[in-house]
Amino acid sequence: MAVHRTDDPAFVFHRGGKLTVASTVPLDSVEDLSLAYTPGVARVSEAIAADESLMADYTWVSRTVAVVTDGSAVLGLGNIGPRAAMPVMEGKAVLFKRFGGVDAVPICLDTQDVDEIVATVTAIAPSFGGINLEDISAPRCFEVERRLDEALPIPVFHDDQHGTAIVVLAALRNAAALLGRKLGDLRVVVSGAGAAGVAVTRMLIAGGVRASSTVVCDSRGALDRDRADLSGQKADLAAATNDTGRSGDIAAALRGADVLIGVSGGTIGEEAVAGMAPHPIIFALANPTPEVDPAVAARYAAVVATGRSDLPNQINNVLAFPGVFRGALTVGARQITDRMKVAAAEAIAAVVAGRLSPDAIVPSPLDPAVAEAVAAAVASAARDEGVDSARARASQTRA
Amino acid sequence: MAVHRTDDPAFVFHRGGKLTVASTVPLDSVEDLSLAYTPGVARVSEAIAADESLMADYTWVSRTVAVVTDGSAVLGLGNIGPRAAMPVMEGKAVLFKRFGGVDAVPICLDTQDVDEIVATVTAIAPSFGGINLEDISAPRCFEVERRLDEALPIPVFHDDQHGTAIVVLAALRNAAALLGRKLGDLRVVVSGAGAAGVAVTRMLIAGGVRASSTVVCDSRGALDRDRADLSGQKADLAAATNDTGRSGDIAAALRGADVLIGVSGGTIGEEAVAGMAPHPIIFALANPTPEVDPAVAARYAAVVATGRSDLPNQINNVLAFPGVFRGALTVGARQITDRMKVAAAEAIAAVVAGRLSPDAIVPSPLDPAVAEAVAAAVASAARDEGVDSARARASQTRA
Repeated sequence: MAVHRTDDPAFVFHRGGKLTVASTVPLDSVEDLSLAYTPGVARVSEAIAADESLMADYTWVSRTVAVVTDGSAVLGLGNIGPRAAMPVMEGKAVLFKRFGGVDAVPICLDTQDVDEIVATVTAIAPSFGGINLEDISAPRCFEVERRLDEALPIPVFHDDQHGTAIVVLAALRNAAALLGRKLGDLRVVVSGAGAAGVAVTRMLIAGGVRASSTVVCDSRGALDRDRADLSGQKADLAAATNDTGRSGDIAAALRGADVLIGVSGGTIGEEAVAGMAPHPIIFALANPTPEVDPAVAARYAAVVATGRSDLPNQINNVLAFPGVFRGALTVGARQITDRMKVAAAEAIAAVVAGRLSPDAIVPSPLDPAVAEAVAAAVASAARDEGVDSARARASQTRA
Repeated sequence: MAVHRTDDPAFVFHRGGKLTVASTVPLDSVEDLSLAYTPGVARVSEAIAADESLMADYTWVSRTVAVVTDGSAVLGLGNIGPRAAMPVMEGKAVLFKRFGGVDAVPICLDTQDVDEIVATVTAIAPSFGGINLEDISAPRCFEVERRLDEALPIPVFHDDQHGTAIVVLAALRNAAALLGRKLGDLRVVVSGAGAAGVAVTRMLIAGGVRASSTVVCDSRGALDRDRADLSGQKADLAAATNDTGRSGDIAAALRGADVLIGVSGGTIGEEAVAGMAPHPIIFALANPTPEVDPAVAARYAAVVATGRSDLPNQINNVLAFPGVFRGALTVGARQITDRMKVAAAEAIAAVVAGRLSPDAIVPSPLDPAVAEAVAAAVASAARDEGVDSARARASQTRA
């Protein structure tokens, strides 16, 4: 199964790793040395000791993000551990730099214990301007993110949840606009109640979808208030959504629905899709095999999106996370709020809003305008929310 | 005292920080994206999950070092904390790259508790090929290093101890050669029994100085076996050195001595220096103020070295750590043994052995030949010791 073939283009591409650290200063003379290191550096360290806000101006921390994983839920591969996760985290760091100009450092943890993860990330946090959590399995990811967000004065963002959710909201806004529908009028079914499903549901509701018209399904069917087997995030979702008390399997939930968001990895058959309202919107995001066969989806839906790069409308997190962190770091944001996430989704949607078609509801992941637009929107929302730093506000006043 | 002046060259030099992360792969097409990230990266991760030794070939880990501090003993500034320490750690990372081609990531810890430091570094260790400990105060640094060295399968190296010790041994070898003396015939006094003093003493003995002819002094005077106030590393040193039982202050210890190594930060007066054997060797390494006034030292000594860049014979750790880690990483060494450190010292000394003068017993810190020579010597010693990895040996066989 896991064959190592040195002639496979993926192995050729990864040979030697994908990252490097570089210096931004010259080191060609004794004078350079005496500035970069002792004795010159001592003056800078002393100044920061006296006024920690100077750290943002004289270190790389304010443009640096840790990409942290415990290797427990890596892509579709599952719990492959921290070492096998490293190529994925390096890839993430490469994308951070290429699209957001953010310096990202992969940190793969040799523990899957929530207390130890929280303690470790808290201990290394002075080294970074933000924490991007990655590929940590549910439900542990919820607690890890919540506790770190409470403990740290820098943004903490679980990309598998919020990156996906931001891009889904962007895509749904444009799909609805294309069809002349309002988000508040759509009946939405989310298939999947893991990390992505929970975050997508919350983000859609924050972005204008009615909670009462949303039904979330896990592998046992619709989450409704009568189910006795629910706890934690699922119980919260059941309480907040599905006002009409739909129950039963995914086919039952989909009957008459306008939108299906698949973030489950399961398979949804043609009969279930056929029961949806006419000309529905189908986002089948499981990789590499979408929950709904793309040919089947095309027969029924007005708009189809997947997670695949070889099909139109790829829902790719890279549209969100580089710009989200770039914007948050620019203003020294202490956290990434729902309002900042909705602003990011609106910015992504706006990039292609003037040229929508059923095959183009989201920008290309290579479009350099996206991260720039997202960063500006996120920074602006952070200022509106007051989660930007006093330091950043002072710098702006000075500038 | 800690004045922040934006026109100070040190602040100008540090503006925006000194490091950046860069990609080593192209990201210009959808195909590049699909190799660097999903779906291509999954094949590489799967292969590593099946055979962890492939991590060395397909990630950046085997050429990456964490520069870890808790900010407790930063340069001469003391316990300024992890945030104020960051410029120093960035500087270290810059030197690692410039001289050793090693990718180094600064990790400044928000804890000074030994258990928490050990737990944190252990947890992040899969992300790195080596751990360079930096500016951690004694005696905690000894326990941190020992426990991490035992726990981790990668090299752990406290540079304030071993980097200094390696360069001191190199310098003493050349000073002795210049004067036609043998290391085993020299009476040596080490002033300072902190992290550097302990490591320098051990390294000199590993490199050929006789333990019996060595006396270590702390602020209360010579360490001898009758002192009741000693514990830990100091008690060990007292038991291993000073066979003639010298006691009393530094002046008493120096009477008739051939070599003074100052790593204490205190002041040693002219009377004490005048009592040494004729034409002694004096290394006064405290920064910025050497323990012996350089003008006084020059009046008595045949060879003088300091830690200062504006005087001849600068004892600078940068001569050691980039090459030491480059060599250890090249062969996938599991640790850095005394033999590897002695080999590093011999290699540094050999770079200038053919052109020695009293003002040139060590190479310039900018000499690019040094790290290369050190790396080769350290790699070779690691193979002799058998601490290189099976993987590295297999790669060599294949090549």
